[in-house]
Amino acid sequence: MANDTFLKACRRQPADHTPVWLMRQAGRYMKEYMAIREKHSFLEMCRNPELACEVTLQPIRAFDLDAAIIFADILLPLPGMGIKLEFAKNEGPVIGNPVRTRKDIDAITNINPEKDVPFLMQAIKMVRKELDGKVPLIGFSGAPFTLASYIIEGEGSRNYVHTKKIMYEDPGAWKALMDKIADVVIVYLKAQVEAGAQTLQLFDSWVGCLGPDDFKEFAMPYTKKVIDALKDTVPVINFGTNTGTYLDIVSQAGGDVIGVDWRVRLDTAWKTIGYGHAIQGNLDPVVLFGPVAAIRKRVKEIIDMAGGRPGHIFNLGHGIVLGTPVDNVRAVVDAVHEFSSKK
Amino acid sequence: MANDTFLKACRRQPADHTPVWLMRQAGRYMKEYMAIREKHSFLEMCRNPELACEVTLQPIRAFDLDAAIIFADILLPLPGMGIKLEFAKNEGPVIGNPVRTRKDIDAITNINPEKDVPFLMQAIKMVRKELDGKVPLIGFSGAPFTLASYIIEGEGSRNYVHTKKIMYEDPGAWKALMDKIADVVIVYLKAQVEAGAQTLQLFDSWVGCLGPDDFKEFAMPYTKKVIDALKDTVPVINFGTNTGTYLDIVSQAGGDVIGVDWRVRLDTAWKTIGYGHAIQGNLDPVVLFGPVAAIRKRVKEIIDMAGGRPGHIFNLGHGIVLGTPVDNVRAVVDAVHEFSSKK
Repeated sequence: MANDTFLKACRRQPADHTPVWLMRQAGRYMKEYMAIREKHSFLEMCRNPELACEVTLQPIRAFDLDAAIIFADILLPLPGMGIKLEFAKNEGPVIGNPVRTRKDIDAITNINPEKDVPFLMQAIKMVRKELDGKVPLIGFSGAPFTLASYIIEGEGSRNYVHTKKIMYEDPGAWKALMDKIADVVIVYLKAQVEAGAQTLQLFDSWVGCLGPDDFKEFAMPYTKKVIDALKDTVPVINFGTNTGTYLDIVSQAGGDVIGVDWRVRLDTAWKTIGYGHAIQGNLDPVVLFGPVAAIRKRVKEIIDMAGGRPGHIFNLGHGIVLGTPVDNVRAVVDAVHEFSSKK
Repeated sequence: MANDTFLKACRRQPADHTPVWLMRQAGRYMKEYMAIREKHSFLEMCRNPELACEVTLQPIRAFDLDAAIIFADILLPLPGMGIKLEFAKNEGPVIGNPVRTRKDIDAITNINPEKDVPFLMQAIKMVRKELDGKVPLIGFSGAPFTLASYIIEGEGSRNYVHTKKIMYEDPGAWKALMDKIADVVIVYLKAQVEAGAQTLQLFDSWVGCLGPDDFKEFAMPYTKKVIDALKDTVPVINFGTNTGTYLDIVSQAGGDVIGVDWRVRLDTAWKTIGYGHAIQGNLDPVVLFGPVAAIRKRVKEIIDMAGGRPGHIFNLGHGIVLGTPVDNVRAVVDAVHEFSSKK
């Protein structure tokens, strides 16, 4: 591998510089991406290995990033579970048969990656070949709570009323659902490793709607189940959005790396998580809309908060926002390398 | 005053029971409210003292609450500041001339409550008369950051890009804007006290989009300015949503009471805030969609976390959610009194 700083950081080994990649680094802020997106729907792009490979590589060509992440969507495993994914003309995905009852839960099946998501495995293989050891490739999945809340609500939600109703009214049904989803995520991620993913990230995008005690009882154990099952494969990054008030419980689920959003200071977050985990984060993505001097100042502050300790992976605290200036993405990546270089 | 447990708790004095009120306790979950709302727009209700008085009193009649809060909207002061409030046919409010430049900021004027929001002062006087000392009345305002982000974005926002751009690009313009808004909030809240408000709450509903350092630099000083100016009036409740990762900085702005959302444990939050402040919170509003047994268990957990220390005001961690069963609201209020009664 030409550049293994990312994998070294996952394992908390010293490296020449702090590695950096950016959540949603393949996306609509790049004109190369939009050129493809204008001709294809988002789901078409996910399901076409050539297109998925191409957009995965676009940010690697454009910026000096230390890792690639496979282009995919967290909802890709759903059809294989018996959940109907529909797209309301150019709107976001909607679920035709949201899960609301014990019967709905019992009907959920595990996936067969070769049959249900073959395009993803093909895309991973193609990207690995194209990268040719330049930087490592990250595979990913939604974490169990986020997938559960999506298939229960059926679409984006403000308050997660249906999800929490099941949790509070029928904890047994909730457990059955989460165990099934955890099993799906395990199969899904193991297939990605088999295809060539060199690190895995769990995205728990929606789990921050839970208070600390609910998180500990209803979400964390299933993330832990997934991470435990992946122990002998590749490094795992455990990332939840808006979980800064209970990072101590997040880290109990495990993960070689804990990802943190921008609502916490990196130094105090790492202390809370424990130095036995690497840490990933945590620049506010909206800082990239500001002037370069302000961006560089904030990058330096985060590098300084990591204190030179091995095991910091620089990232945003959330995905790149639509409209982010490409030159400012470059400024972040280059500033991370400049401020952290040990050479 | 027949029931002064709420005011005692604001001042951290012992009381017979833990007082309880619920954010958005006057609202669409009540059929009495809907009977009025069906005939009048939300803004009409705010601007009609008789209607505002009536809906303020509805939850006081229906439940054994320890405080009333005046029915109003955080955007009411905007027209007096020279900001055009428009309503896109039954949609939420939209701002006709969002603030984006230094010139826009310089054009903002302070309000004259008697001229700009006379209906609010009249409503407060009417409610006080109707309550006749039964329970105290809370007045409120949006906090400076939340008002600033609303007039900059012009509508609800996901990422607050325009707001943060001004912060990062022109800190001088930001300071000028926030100082002006703080002056408006001070005038607005002092007028409410003059009319009869016996406590004031600042709602910083959107400030949780900021990381801790940005919060400390760009938001907290202006909330502090407001609270300092209100020192010799009535107790002030300082509530921000999604600020659980930096409650230490929130409490630096002051406030007799610090409000906390449900993403923190009440015991650790109070410790962080410091016992020199009372605390308000913090049941997850969606718990009210669950069974009564689960609701009572969680109410008891929060009462227990307060540990019998004087100065706990029970509330939800956020406003009551549309569709909440009325009987479950009653169950919360009664459970708070049952579990905390000292008699």
